[in-house]
Amino acid sequence: MTPIAVRNPYENSDDDDASSETGQGQAPLLTEIDHIAIAVFDLGAAVDTYRETFGALVEHREVVDSDGVEEALLRVADSYVQLLAATRDDSPVAKFLAKSGEGLHHVAYRVADCGAALEAVKAQGHRVIDDEPRPGSRGTTVAFIHPKAMCGTLIELVQE
Amino acid sequence: MTPIAVRNPYENSDDDDASSETGQGQAPLLTEIDHIAIAVFDLGAAVDTYRETFGALVEHREVVDSDGVEEALLRVADSYVQLLAATRDDSPVAKFLAKSGEGLHHVAYRVADCGAALEAVKAQGHRVIDDEPRPGSRGTTVAFIHPKAMCGTLIELVQE
Repeated sequence: MTPIAVRNPYENSDDDDASSETGQGQAPLLTEIDHIAIAVFDLGAAVDTYRETFGALVEHREVVDSDGVEEALLRVADSYVQLLAATRDDSPVAKFLAKSGEGLHHVAYRVADCGAALEAVKAQGHRVIDDEPRPGSRGTTVAFIHPKAMCGTLIELVQE
Repeated sequence: MTPIAVRNPYENSDDDDASSETGQGQAPLLTEIDHIAIAVFDLGAAVDTYRETFGALVEHREVVDSDGVEEALLRVADSYVQLLAATRDDSPVAKFLAKSGEGLHHVAYRVADCGAALEAVKAQGHRVIDDEPRPGSRGTTVAFIHPKAMCGTLIELVQE
């Protein structure tokens, strides 16, 4: 992959006052853990388990046809637990469940600008799943980074 | 397992004004995603990857002898990414890495009272790994819930 010429958001910049405030020379790219996603066989049963065990309630539920999933979002502070069930046998989550069973599927980080964050990741030479940002659930804009790039972890960038 | 008699934190309580404010009849048990833990073979290389890709910096690094791990905590808002490497071959993280390779290992939720939260989980009849709270890193008090109880996800409760 040819590195794409983008401004490196971690470079010191003379016109970036935030640098000196944080003392880190850069603004953080990841502003929040948006959600942790857990693949489950039975969405209703998983929602019940989280409610009964932790009192966690569903704030949003949505079928995402393009991904072949139905999700239930349970709020934890400014983040979510995303319970994720497959809606068809050929969806990535169905394949994950068939191979590995229920469990942690990916981590999503909130970013201010998904396109800029994705370009920064690609500029590092990292393999991505989405070459361009695309619509996610809740009206968000998202892009996935390949797990091989990030220590075996499937990472989603989410712009609200 | 015999259910342990504890007050159910999800029950409505006449003297709990917060109930009517939230409209949920209960205070949330999970107050924050404390951290997501990622098992890695080489802690230094993983720290470099997160710094170079996301500008995420190490805020705390600690060897936890009892768990056979060394951890590096990278702050994201009020949560952390915990990069976790094994310090001996017989530690649970070493076994995880040998079986599954690098990847998501567990999710930790912050709670106000680890002991009370653990009792509430046990009262639901769920299998736990730590029968009592124990010291964690950073001076925290922690307890792990068995993944079989929670949709294949190893969950840690963390009291700061």
